[in-house]
Amino acid sequence: MSKTILITGGARSGKSALAERHALTLASQAVYIATAEVRDDEMAERVALHQARRGDEWRTVHAPLNLLETLRKTDGCGVRLVDCLTLWLSNLMLGGHDWQDAVQALAAALPEQRDPVVIVTNEVGAGIVPENALARAYRDASGLMNQIIAAAADEVYLAVCGLPLKVKPNEQHAF
Amino acid sequence: MSKTILITGGARSGKSALAERHALTLASQAVYIATAEVRDDEMAERVALHQARRGDEWRTVHAPLNLLETLRKTDGCGVRLVDCLTLWLSNLMLGGHDWQDAVQALAAALPEQRDPVVIVTNEVGAGIVPENALARAYRDASGLMNQIIAAAADEVYLAVCGLPLKVKPNEQHAF
Amino acid sequence: MSKTILITGGARSGKSALAERHALTLASQAVYIATAEVRDDEMAERVALHQARRGDEWRTVHAPLNLLETLRKTDGCGVRLVDCLTLWLSNLMLGGHDWQDAVQALAAALPEQRDPVVIVTNEVGAGIVPENALARAYRDASGLMNQIIAAAADEVYLAVCGLPLKVKPNEQHAF
Repeated sequence: MSKTILITGGARSGKSALAERHALTLASQAVYIATAEVRDDEMAERVALHQARRGDEWRTVHAPLNLLETLRKTDGCGVRLVDCLTLWLSNLMLGGHDWQDAVQALAAALPEQRDPVVIVTNEVGAGIVPENALARAYRDASGLMNQIIAAAADEVYLAVCGLPLKVKPNEQHAF
Repeated sequence: MSKTILITGGARSGKSALAERHALTLASQAVYIATAEVRDDEMAERVALHQARRGDEWRTVHAPLNLLETLRKTDGCGVRLVDCLTLWLSNLMLGGHDWQDAVQALAAALPEQRDPVVIVTNEVGAGIVPENALARAYRDASGLMNQIIAAAADEVYLAVCGLPLKVKPNEQHAF
Repeated sequence: MSKTILITGGARSGKSALAERHALTLASQAVYIATAEVRDDEMAERVALHQARRGDEWRTVHAPLNLLETLRKTDGCGVRLVDCLTLWLSNLMLGGHDWQDAVQALAAALPEQRDPVVIVTNEVGAGIVPENALARAYRDASGLMNQIIAAAADEVYLAVCGLPLKVKPNEQHAF
């Protein structure tokens, strides 16, 4: 049975480490789906740090845009960890793609997966409204994407200081 | 018996949709109290999107400043949804009004309401300290306002990816 | 037995007031360890507001950099409240100190304390990525520090609208 887990949080809230730890409780083989396009040294350093932390159970594939196709191709290879959804969104928006269609297609495809999928995303909307219109558009798109994927996910966690706070399912919190 | 529910969260965290859903569990008739002053196209689009989502149970009143008076006038008309408190604060500050007095008066009036009130507010303080002094003042005022209204509320929820995380009452989390 | 409590949250989320309230449930005498370097009027005002709120149980010591030494010297004087860790980090970074060493040393020293320590920190990573490289570095360092101290803490709370949301320990949220 498929299972989708979404882990969200602010920058350096420990989302990726939590996602990796959680992924390895779901399968012994794992595929790391990197959405980052390595465009500068700061990004390269971040990717290298993440790779160094992962062990031999992991193989890495890159999917800056073709996330859906990559999920289909790797279904049967073990748990997939998508890191992260906000970079994928950024790649879609910068490339002039229809991000809303892509997000809806992803949400629709998740329940069809046989192997589990752990998805890392970011909280970017809890600061002051950005003066930059592009930043506002990105912030809005990120939030909408997170809502759509969370609705399709079986479990949702908010990472706080490296610790997981369960948001879904959570009977205690239901209206 | 009156009941006040506060729903907070970042931009596009699904606060308004959660608030609308929750409001309709409390009464069959609902009043949408919009605090937005429609000053540009971006805002007009956002207001239109929110209105399109609401059904026939709703009537809309505008209260960019006179929130307290509007709550008094609509008491007896069903559940009231205030969307949102941070825009009201912004209108108060930009208009040179005493926002602290206004917030305290609102907090004092909430328990006197006969019909329930669902209030949407925003988390704006979890980013980097803004360089702009006005943005810092607004951020501080928002946080103080949220604390004052949360203290007067019966229930407080944090919206994360469109999902409600109960903050109050929450025995499990009490010190 | 020692006990470390970490309280995090956005600006004006009520962290300090929660920390003070919690500290006085742990001991009748309390030491307020202020990490702020008072460099401008805005900061002076903030410090004065915080001091005015505290009662006679409190004495105040200043530790803009020498936090570890201050914790050792005040062990035996009652509960210590460190307010706040992010200002201490900022002082370390601006002074050209090795903040990673300092944070690791603090994490190692916390379990050795006899009297309890309540630590206030900040969430600064849930907004849009800052354009400023220094702000990005500070945001990353803050998040990493929070993870390290949270791992060493017995309890971790997220302040939301002045209310505590327990993050650790929290069986319900464990993976």
